[in-house]
Amino acid sequence: MSFNSFGRVFRFTTWGESHGPAIGAVVDGCPPGLPLSESDIQPWLDLRKPGTSKFTTQRREADEVRILSGVFEGRTTGTPISLMIENTDQRSKDYSDVAKAYRPGHADYAYDAKYGFRDYRGGGRSSARETASRVAAGAVARAVIPEVDIFAYVSEIGGDGIDYANFDPAQIGQNPFFCPDAEAAKRWEKLVDDARLDGSSLGAVVECIASGVPAGWGAPLYAKLDGELASAMMSINAVKGVEIGDGFAAARLRGEQNADPMRPALNGGSEGPVFLANHAGGIAGGIATGQPVKVRVAFKPTSSILIPVETVTREGAAADIITKGRHDPCVGIRGVPVVEAMMALVLADQKLLHRAQCGERPE
Amino acid sequence: MSFNSFGRVFRFTTWGESHGPAIGAVVDGCPPGLPLSESDIQPWLDLRKPGTSKFTTQRREADEVRILSGVFEGRTTGTPISLMIENTDQRSKDYSDVAKAYRPGHADYAYDAKYGFRDYRGGGRSSARETASRVAAGAVARAVIPEVDIFAYVSEIGGDGIDYANFDPAQIGQNPFFCPDAEAAKRWEKLVDDARLDGSSLGAVVECIASGVPAGWGAPLYAKLDGELASAMMSINAVKGVEIGDGFAAARLRGEQNADPMRPALNGGSEGPVFLANHAGGIAGGIATGQPVKVRVAFKPTSSILIPVETVTREGAAADIITKGRHDPCVGIRGVPVVEAMMALVLADQKLLHRAQCGERPE
Amino acid sequence: MSFNSFGRVFRFTTWGESHGPAIGAVVDGCPPGLPLSESDIQPWLDLRKPGTSKFTTQRREADEVRILSGVFEGRTTGTPISLMIENTDQRSKDYSDVAKAYRPGHADYAYDAKYGFRDYRGGGRSSARETASRVAAGAVARAVIPEVDIFAYVSEIGGDGIDYANFDPAQIGQNPFFCPDAEAAKRWEKLVDDARLDGSSLGAVVECIASGVPAGWGAPLYAKLDGELASAMMSINAVKGVEIGDGFAAARLRGEQNADPMRPALNGGSEGPVFLANHAGGIAGGIATGQPVKVRVAFKPTSSILIPVETVTREGAAADIITKGRHDPCVGIRGVPVVEAMMALVLADQKLLHRAQCGERPE
Amino acid sequence: MSFNSFGRVFRFTTWGESHGPAIGAVVDGCPPGLPLSESDIQPWLDLRKPGTSKFTTQRREADEVRILSGVFEGRTTGTPISLMIENTDQRSKDYSDVAKAYRPGHADYAYDAKYGFRDYRGGGRSSARETASRVAAGAVARAVIPEVDIFAYVSEIGGDGIDYANFDPAQIGQNPFFCPDAEAAKRWEKLVDDARLDGSSLGAVVECIASGVPAGWGAPLYAKLDGELASAMMSINAVKGVEIGDGFAAARLRGEQNADPMRPALNGGSEGPVFLANHAGGIAGGIATGQPVKVRVAFKPTSSILIPVETVTREGAAADIITKGRHDPCVGIRGVPVVEAMMALVLADQKLLHRAQCGERPE
Repeated sequence: MSFNSFGRVFRFTTWGESHGPAIGAVVDGCPPGLPLSESDIQPWLDLRKPGTSKFTTQRREADEVRILSGVFEGRTTGTPISLMIENTDQRSKDYSDVAKAYRPGHADYAYDAKYGFRDYRGGGRSSARETASRVAAGAVARAVIPEVDIFAYVSEIGGDGIDYANFDPAQIGQNPFFCPDAEAAKRWEKLVDDARLDGSSLGAVVECIASGVPAGWGAPLYAKLDGELASAMMSINAVKGVEIGDGFAAARLRGEQNADPMRPALNGGSEGPVFLANHAGGIAGGIATGQPVKVRVAFKPTSSILIPVETVTREGAAADIITKGRHDPCVGIRGVPVVEAMMALVLADQKLLHRAQCGERPE
Repeated sequence: MSFNSFGRVFRFTTWGESHGPAIGAVVDGCPPGLPLSESDIQPWLDLRKPGTSKFTTQRREADEVRILSGVFEGRTTGTPISLMIENTDQRSKDYSDVAKAYRPGHADYAYDAKYGFRDYRGGGRSSARETASRVAAGAVARAVIPEVDIFAYVSEIGGDGIDYANFDPAQIGQNPFFCPDAEAAKRWEKLVDDARLDGSSLGAVVECIASGVPAGWGAPLYAKLDGELASAMMSINAVKGVEIGDGFAAARLRGEQNADPMRPALNGGSEGPVFLANHAGGIAGGIATGQPVKVRVAFKPTSSILIPVETVTREGAAADIITKGRHDPCVGIRGVPVVEAMMALVLADQKLLHRAQCGERPE
Repeated sequence: MSFNSFGRVFRFTTWGESHGPAIGAVVDGCPPGLPLSESDIQPWLDLRKPGTSKFTTQRREADEVRILSGVFEGRTTGTPISLMIENTDQRSKDYSDVAKAYRPGHADYAYDAKYGFRDYRGGGRSSARETASRVAAGAVARAVIPEVDIFAYVSEIGGDGIDYANFDPAQIGQNPFFCPDAEAAKRWEKLVDDARLDGSSLGAVVECIASGVPAGWGAPLYAKLDGELASAMMSINAVKGVEIGDGFAAARLRGEQNADPMRPALNGGSEGPVFLANHAGGIAGGIATGQPVKVRVAFKPTSSILIPVETVTREGAAADIITKGRHDPCVGIRGVPVVEAMMALVLADQKLLHRAQCGERPE
Repeated sequence: MSFNSFGRVFRFTTWGESHGPAIGAVVDGCPPGLPLSESDIQPWLDLRKPGTSKFTTQRREADEVRILSGVFEGRTTGTPISLMIENTDQRSKDYSDVAKAYRPGHADYAYDAKYGFRDYRGGGRSSARETASRVAAGAVARAVIPEVDIFAYVSEIGGDGIDYANFDPAQIGQNPFFCPDAEAAKRWEKLVDDARLDGSSLGAVVECIASGVPAGWGAPLYAKLDGELASAMMSINAVKGVEIGDGFAAARLRGEQNADPMRPALNGGSEGPVFLANHAGGIAGGIATGQPVKVRVAFKPTSSILIPVETVTREGAAADIITKGRHDPCVGIRGVPVVEAMMALVLADQKLLHRAQCGERPE
């Protein structure tokens, strides 16, 4: 296993630095014959494009993807699919201060401790822009799992949560926050704008639902669907917590409250029983139950802020640091397409793994 | 990657069913020359032995481990270490009802959907007893990371949490709950006993701290220390949520509140700066910062309860189910040694990975 | 990836030392529902049992396998299958001399250089007995690929080769050499007996054919069927060369001689063209062509001989060494079941990999 | 494990089709701080550049590599290194015939059987040009193992071998054949030219020596140095056989002839004993002995020839095929830099693996 690959059969490797010439991903193990072109991938990248609102980073980028291999006459060949996005907007001069001192909350100090030096430009490899390659890879994954529908949204910013009674999926694309509650979206405008003006930042919670996942995907214990999802989501920049289904709330329920009772399907059909609840979030014992898979992801507030924070320089002297340049007041908002992409990537891999082991049923 | 292995260099594979003749683990990639014998492993197993209190499962087991390979004259050889624990207490007859119907919250239905049938005895592979092999493997991992100190405790049962002002590590081994707050431990006696008498069950939250982790362990993005911990913890039976540091609480802080400021070490020494806070839980950008690594794990309440829950039989007919036999009213308690073991296993692997890539610094 | 596992989806990990209490294997990723019991595995082990003729090692062992997990009511569950073979015949005292000096050709010196010390008893981990666990794992693999027929034989001992004009598969089980040429078998009796009396040893060449491998198994480049076979065979103790099809002889042919021409199937059926030759050995571009897969494996002569050879002690002083104890005059003979087992293990993994990526064909 | 990656810690993934816009590789796990720039990689690519002599392919290409990530201020950062080579010379029209029929010896038929269709242009993914990305990755590997010296040469073309008595390494770069025997090189001019004029092709044998490999690299059994080398070499296009040390010749030696006797180092120093022979080719029990590692690789003759060979079309009808376009009369010659690259890639990975497990020696 290498350090920068994810997945077991449907596998992707990302590369590229925020301020390097390009970023990209190599997607391996994709089944052959699936329709794929740049136009299948670009919309997902556009969804995360900075500059689309004043609430996200002010870097203006095309984020235009090219497919360099693995596709022939509009269909996947089964060979590795190389995706590349060139970096067209790079302003190195914004980072001169941070070359000398460590930004608290960033990986700067840890990077130095590990590698002996670091590429201080932007966030280097741990920057949020690296996620563009993941979103691109996620678009390929979606082609593998047409039976699954995935959508994510922000459920909370800075402690201010949506009202589930007001939940309307159609609202998600109608505001800059991927918010399904129109009233919350209005409140968040002020909330995030104030934080930006303060030079501060806010955390967020993102929820993601995948419907249509057939019961059976996943494997007990170490290729567990929830284990893989936990790892995938925690690997997203700024994530500090992952829940499946009720998550930490389940720790406060009693057994009979947390159970997901089952009833026979009305038509006695073959599609499995009807569940009366989904505290489990669609996964039991590491395997999908056929219910919607539900994941919640906690994003911490951006560490790149304009409020001075005590830090030390590389030589160990005390210093204050203000991170200039262009930054998100709330990275969690931009995390929504990334969370969806990781959900797709994990499910695609799980589908192929399930097929590998259980593709045939013996007599 | 196979389905039942974990780790990249320091790697273990577990095997065995709850009601099979034995369970075990093969630990691979262990450095040679480390002192190891059964007496290094057995105490950790005894810590989780059922029957030690009326609050845990009433199965009386020796859980005695044997080392079958990989050790010579008391030291690891560098070759695979095979550990085996024979099952001495198995009562199959307790499970006759569940052979026919699915236990809600268990993996029964999902297993059937995946494999076409299931081994209904106990929990088969998803049983809590499988964790004995993980605890054994974890003991081997501890030998690899003598510089790290790991301890875990229960911080909350059924919504009733400890008071951190009363936190006393010495209390952890003094009560049946691994609880560091003597007063909370008293309250929990009644709480858990009542649940057991009701035939119900309770969830719990376990926290784990690893001190002495050198800054630099971990790798950005996909061998991320927090990603691996998330996967490791989520793979424990009954876990539904994982947090690093402040976790979901970080989503409610502002940037300047969540920052971990740094000051120069007082003696200007080489051991790195002094941190003034640890919201990050010891990990930034996937790499250890040198601060204590802190993980919180949410356990749902046991699904095996005596209160009837609606379910369906294998043929699809409606039924109620009561799970007889011997069960934990609170599996989270027994999760403590397992959480510690997984922390050790991940850190051992990360140490070797770090050494692989960064073992030499060039001129 | 760890050091002692092989395979990507159908994966096995072996453990155990020649003179430890037991050896075994954990087989992971096996499809569920396949019939499996000890009686499916034992015959393959018996085929390699020492003491069956005076031409092989004089260690008398039961080599009796137990299945400890992964099987329920006679069929695989899809969970890890743990196999164990206890060592019933161990005579440590034969190895006292070799504790002090390095046996040339053995891994003794290299082991010391790597690990700092070694388990000198028998061959430790590099002993031929470790292959028993591979043969057991291979028996499980055969259950996964019922459509394939595998057989191997010795084609040459000490430079004396079979006459392919005398080739009769029925002869393979009729002599102690797995030899398909009755006349060669007679010559080899004297050849090997003389070597044994001289205290010397002989090398051998083993050929293995797998028929019925469907065209399409294998993946170009790095999960190449021939690449995986090369690795699998080279990992067998004492192997120094691997060929696919014509192997090194192909290097001496011209292009038009080496080509495998194709003709349409007589009935214009769907089973593919008829090949007029098989220089390629059933594999082209890393993928099976549907023709018999043919592999040749070269075994060097045993390094454990009674003729003194110059060596050095651990402290660096000159010494001569004679390896007493019980040894094979020709390890290549015992390699036949192992070569078959490795063929089965690779093909099982390739079948599942192929199913993972290409299990469905799109419209 | 995915299909197109190789290595366990120092790992590379290649991508790209012969007639696509570009080919490339992502190298992961590289230690940080190593000097690296395009000028470290380009010379190795130039060594394999087609058109340098009339004996190799007539495609004129720049094969110019770009480093897109993983390097900062001239040194590796420890993050993935993305290498790209754009395809500047592509003539699709040469392949119109082969779109309809299968080229015997090529992977065409097998590809169709696996994927349901194929990219017929050039060799698609199985083309020799894919090796350019491996040569580039190999250059990065060399930076990891400065202590090792690697060189390869052609020892035999079309059955005509060099005379080891005339062996002069300085000759290797002095002729178009990487031949260390000046007289053989002269003979080969005519041999290969005649084959080209006949429209035929020839096979070749390449030998590769790595000196300075410290004793101890490699791990017994499944990360065996010789197993990994076998897999690496067999994955090269057109390879049908791999030998370590004496290879198949060892099968014809007696034990006392095949032994590599040892004597104490003259100065009693710490660099290990002096070996009196190297039949083992520098590897015993999967671990390096400190002697030169020697590998022999058999290349079959090119399947792309101008002599008609019987084949079938995609629909199953009989046809003859002549492969027009530009082809090598002897692909083995161009295999030399690739064999060296694979040797470097395997040794780099083995070095890091060894460091991972054995980087520290306990007291």
